[in-house]
Amino acid sequence: MELKIFGDKTIEVGAKEDLYNTLKGQGTYLVAPCGGKGTCGKCKVRILDGKVDCKSYGRLEQKERLEGVVLACQTNAKTDLTIEIPRQSRLTLGGKIASTAFKEPAEYLKSYNFEINPIVKRVFLKLPPPSIEDNISDLERLKRAVLEAALENMRFSYELVATLGETLRTANWNVTLSYAEEENINTFEALSLFSQDECSRRYGIAVDIGTTTVVVYLIDLVSGRIIDIGSTYNSQTRFGDDVITRIVFATEGGGLNDLREAVVSDINTILDSLSDRHGIEMCEIDACAVSGNTTMSQIFWGLNPETIREDPYIPTINYYPLWKGKTSGLKINPQSPVYTSPCVASYVGGDIAAGILASKMYRNSEIALFMDIGTNAEIVIGNNEWLMTAACSAGPCFEGGGIKNGMRATPGAIESIKIDPNTYEPIISVIGGVTPMGICGSGMIDAIVEMFKTGLINQKGIFAQGKTNRIREGEEGLEFLIYSDKELKRDIVLTKVDIENLIRAKAAIFAGVTLLLKEVGLPVDAIEKVYIAGGFGNSLNVEQTKMLGMIPDLPVEKYVFLGNTSIVGAYLSLMCDELRYELEEIASKMTYIELSVIAGYMDEYMSAMFIPHTDLSVFPSIKDEIGKYLYQIN
Amino acid sequence: MELKIFGDKTIEVGAKEDLYNTLKGQGTYLVAPCGGKGTCGKCKVRILDGKVDCKSYGRLEQKERLEGVVLACQTNAKTDLTIEIPRQSRLTLGGKIASTAFKEPAEYLKSYNFEINPIVKRVFLKLPPPSIEDNISDLERLKRAVLEAALENMRFSYELVATLGETLRTANWNVTLSYAEEENINTFEALSLFSQDECSRRYGIAVDIGTTTVVVYLIDLVSGRIIDIGSTYNSQTRFGDDVITRIVFATEGGGLNDLREAVVSDINTILDSLSDRHGIEMCEIDACAVSGNTTMSQIFWGLNPETIREDPYIPTINYYPLWKGKTSGLKINPQSPVYTSPCVASYVGGDIAAGILASKMYRNSEIALFMDIGTNAEIVIGNNEWLMTAACSAGPCFEGGGIKNGMRATPGAIESIKIDPNTYEPIISVIGGVTPMGICGSGMIDAIVEMFKTGLINQKGIFAQGKTNRIREGEEGLEFLIYSDKELKRDIVLTKVDIENLIRAKAAIFAGVTLLLKEVGLPVDAIEKVYIAGGFGNSLNVEQTKMLGMIPDLPVEKYVFLGNTSIVGAYLSLMCDELRYELEEIASKMTYIELSVIAGYMDEYMSAMFIPHTDLSVFPSIKDEIGKYLYQIN
Repeated sequence: MELKIFGDKTIEVGAKEDLYNTLKGQGTYLVAPCGGKGTCGKCKVRILDGKVDCKSYGRLEQKERLEGVVLACQTNAKTDLTIEIPRQSRLTLGGKIASTAFKEPAEYLKSYNFEINPIVKRVFLKLPPPSIEDNISDLERLKRAVLEAALENMRFSYELVATLGETLRTANWNVTLSYAEEENINTFEALSLFSQDECSRRYGIAVDIGTTTVVVYLIDLVSGRIIDIGSTYNSQTRFGDDVITRIVFATEGGGLNDLREAVVSDINTILDSLSDRHGIEMCEIDACAVSGNTTMSQIFWGLNPETIREDPYIPTINYYPLWKGKTSGLKINPQSPVYTSPCVASYVGGDIAAGILASKMYRNSEIALFMDIGTNAEIVIGNNEWLMTAACSAGPCFEGGGIKNGMRATPGAIESIKIDPNTYEPIISVIGGVTPMGICGSGMIDAIVEMFKTGLINQKGIFAQGKTNRIREGEEGLEFLIYSDKELKRDIVLTKVDIENLIRAKAAIFAGVTLLLKEVGLPVDAIEKVYIAGGFGNSLNVEQTKMLGMIPDLPVEKYVFLGNTSIVGAYLSLMCDELRYELEEIASKMTYIELSVIAGYMDEYMSAMFIPHTDLSVFPSIKDEIGKYLYQIN
Repeated sequence: MELKIFGDKTIEVGAKEDLYNTLKGQGTYLVAPCGGKGTCGKCKVRILDGKVDCKSYGRLEQKERLEGVVLACQTNAKTDLTIEIPRQSRLTLGGKIASTAFKEPAEYLKSYNFEINPIVKRVFLKLPPPSIEDNISDLERLKRAVLEAALENMRFSYELVATLGETLRTANWNVTLSYAEEENINTFEALSLFSQDECSRRYGIAVDIGTTTVVVYLIDLVSGRIIDIGSTYNSQTRFGDDVITRIVFATEGGGLNDLREAVVSDINTILDSLSDRHGIEMCEIDACAVSGNTTMSQIFWGLNPETIREDPYIPTINYYPLWKGKTSGLKINPQSPVYTSPCVASYVGGDIAAGILASKMYRNSEIALFMDIGTNAEIVIGNNEWLMTAACSAGPCFEGGGIKNGMRATPGAIESIKIDPNTYEPIISVIGGVTPMGICGSGMIDAIVEMFKTGLINQKGIFAQGKTNRIREGEEGLEFLIYSDKELKRDIVLTKVDIENLIRAKAAIFAGVTLLLKEVGLPVDAIEKVYIAGGFGNSLNVEQTKMLGMIPDLPVEKYVFLGNTSIVGAYLSLMCDELRYELEEIASKMTYIELSVIAGYMDEYMSAMFIPHTDLSVFPSIKDEIGKYLYQIN
């Protein structure tokens, strides 16, 4: 029988295998922390057409069942089927690395002029077997060899000693010791001991814990090659879209643990799928680097983030010790070190420090601006001598949060829009060339700017009625119809509320940049490079984004798109100790400015609540063009 | 109603309270790891007279039930009772510290010219509360204060950071940090953080894990005062009397774990009773030092002791890192460091290194001999420049193991014996002045020597028949009746097999001393001091022991009895870092001699299988007296 995935491919399906496993077998992965046992209730799909056999509905709500939602792992096809996979159910494997520079991370790493030197090192030790004359204990024998290998101050955990006697003898006294260096306390930590020919494959993972998205790189620790990539939505989202809501939830009874379990199980689900796909044992993954914002990092480790949102906004921890795989709850070697990118302050986290590492701006003398636009936006200005940073309360809308038909920049997302100035018909471009399912950040920016240019909204973002029936009354007030799906009977729109949210977000970002420049006493054109990081990917149109008034009025050639710098920074810190230490230094060098307490913030923010700004002199290069559109509206 | 404890006191008993709790309430403690729930089956008592009500017989065997054995926690009195508490059921609290020097351990510690400086230190830190201007994270704030207190290279565990934010704020930024120093890796480890006035009471425990006996000191960490002492039989005994049998058992499926659990639960049972008696919370016990022989130490930590008994006799570990209370399974603060006395070799363990520390012989220039006679015997010769050591396969008989009516030197033990040369009637002295229950090491030595002096046995230990009907045929061949208990219908005897065991044991010890002296090339009279450690206590008679041929023929004034030096060494290492480092140095300075591979060992052993020796010139000072006895026999 045929199984048609709406907006995607069509695959073969048999009556005997459930949909979860059928899809998995043909490369479409669903989220299922329970491994397909019907207990987690996450592998939801909607049956659009055809008949199925359902073993169990698990914890599905009545409403969902009436809409045709089933658990894929509990459902078998009885006829040809058409199904829809909701974005939350989809696990993405084999994703792309957005920017050109990062396409070959192992090559990119070399451009730092360091060799591969991963966080977990190995040393081969040939021990003389014991005798009556040389009868020191096993651990002392190992320590003697370790000292001969010039490794002083090595710490041996209980776990390693617990199996030491057996390992040494099984390995016939020829062993490989893995260890990590803890620079800040001048100590090495012994991790695992192997037979010479055991565990010759070595993998590591880099993890970006975004507020909205979780991304995992599976890495060959020897070559530095990225073997595969997996990503999914952060299922903490069900407890709240933004960090503040989640912090509040964390302080409630059991909330912290729920949040922690959600993200750890997201990562583990990806790890399960990646391991399955590449035939890797969990114990072969013996290193991990994680980067996330301050709240995400603390929740990942089960540290209450309460004080992050209380004046004076203090995290429990910025510089994390190397804790263990076992402590993290990740399905990796329990003895593996887990490195956490250092955070700078409550609202500038390890993802930003990692981003600066990936951008290299901390190594150059030219003054650069770094903007990471994800859920919220963080900005950094500086060079190899100084770094200033601030956070903008932009909210999650550019990643799809709080936007009616918003979604991440993944297949099915409308990523760019052109509106015909005469017919007002939108021409859309969809990631992956499939049926559109929603609109991502770059698409939203295009939509607003195109509506502004064609006079469908004014400088404040208010709809001009009567020009086209694509502007219509919706559930939340006026909305603009971008795409109508006859088959699904579903429209993709941008609502009045969406536009308000987007303008607030861009205003927060622009006000942040303006104020940070003021704080450092530099004019806009002192900026020689602008690095844009975040989920926009390569599809962000600089001219349009400038026109929206979100980014400074600088020549296009100064802009560089970097994509997900958080995970690339994590990758670099995992693969090279020297870069890990540089990352620690970056964080300690960054000066955090709390924008909300600076006089003038509110003024800057209010001025930026226009397209592009109340003061057009701030955008000199497009001033004339803007004037044309304003004239056209009036 | 009255409850008469056979050979002990008489107490009041009500019908409503079970015997376990009745006894506990009046200061008689039984072993009950389950806490009196009827599940562990250890609080066995025997009803000699009176009627009881039994809720459950638990796992008691049919044979035991027929003999009147019940579980005290499941049994209530219905009439006046007389009960017998078997030695294995009895937990001893408030025991005595044997030797004069150790009676005030805190004073004794001062004699080393060091101040009290326990393994867990505390530093009070007054942190400035955070502000927008001083907004570093909680951990960085703590680290800054730690550095200001001149503590570099401090390691912070996950457990400490997990509650850091809350503790700092509850304590209003005035906190006490406890930490330990790991000298060998030049690192401090942060352990726990308290509010200023929280946990002002601080306790530590020193534990001696003997093959036969487990002893615990409960210590006030501030004053160094011993608050109480508890001891019990090592319940590993049910898996075998000596270390070799236990090593074999450990290598069987699950055996290692059974052994580990047995000893950990023994210690925890003592801790329960001590905490109960003194109103101490488990979390207030925040430091522990353990000493035991190499096998006991490894089993305590769950490390397979298999290779200890295989040529070339290699322990897994001699120098233990500071592992945690949590890892040990002890009912103490999970974050407390547990120090393990360093072992020297497979058959010279941490108990001996600790003993040398307690003896101070490593600090003096005079050449001393140290003998620890417990289950097996270890000997050390040396001074402040060198230390040589060896182990003698003496077996457990001096602690009561393998001796028909043998027992430890606790109340009820016959500790000295005099035999009337005319009537052959023994005059006995019993520890605690109660009804005799068995015979301890010093009593056995007296018995053999007295029998030899009165011609009841010859130089080989063979019975001379016909002189007294106290020498009679028993189950195991000939035996000497020491005491007959009419009431219990039970006799205390010393059998032919017992005497053979004792002579073998003393021969092994004496051969060890002789060979070790030969190895270092010193005559006997080069020894200026002999320190005797072990369970004999103050009751060991030097002249008698010399006559037995167990110890060298040196003047009585050279002999010093030290009692349990293993636990005193553990106490010293717990209370003073400087002494802990000295202990590590002692272990590394000790040269171990494997006696069994030295030519001539067998000859020396065989020569010592006589009372006192085949070559009487080895015992010049008693040669004449011996001749008299030999003459008397012939």
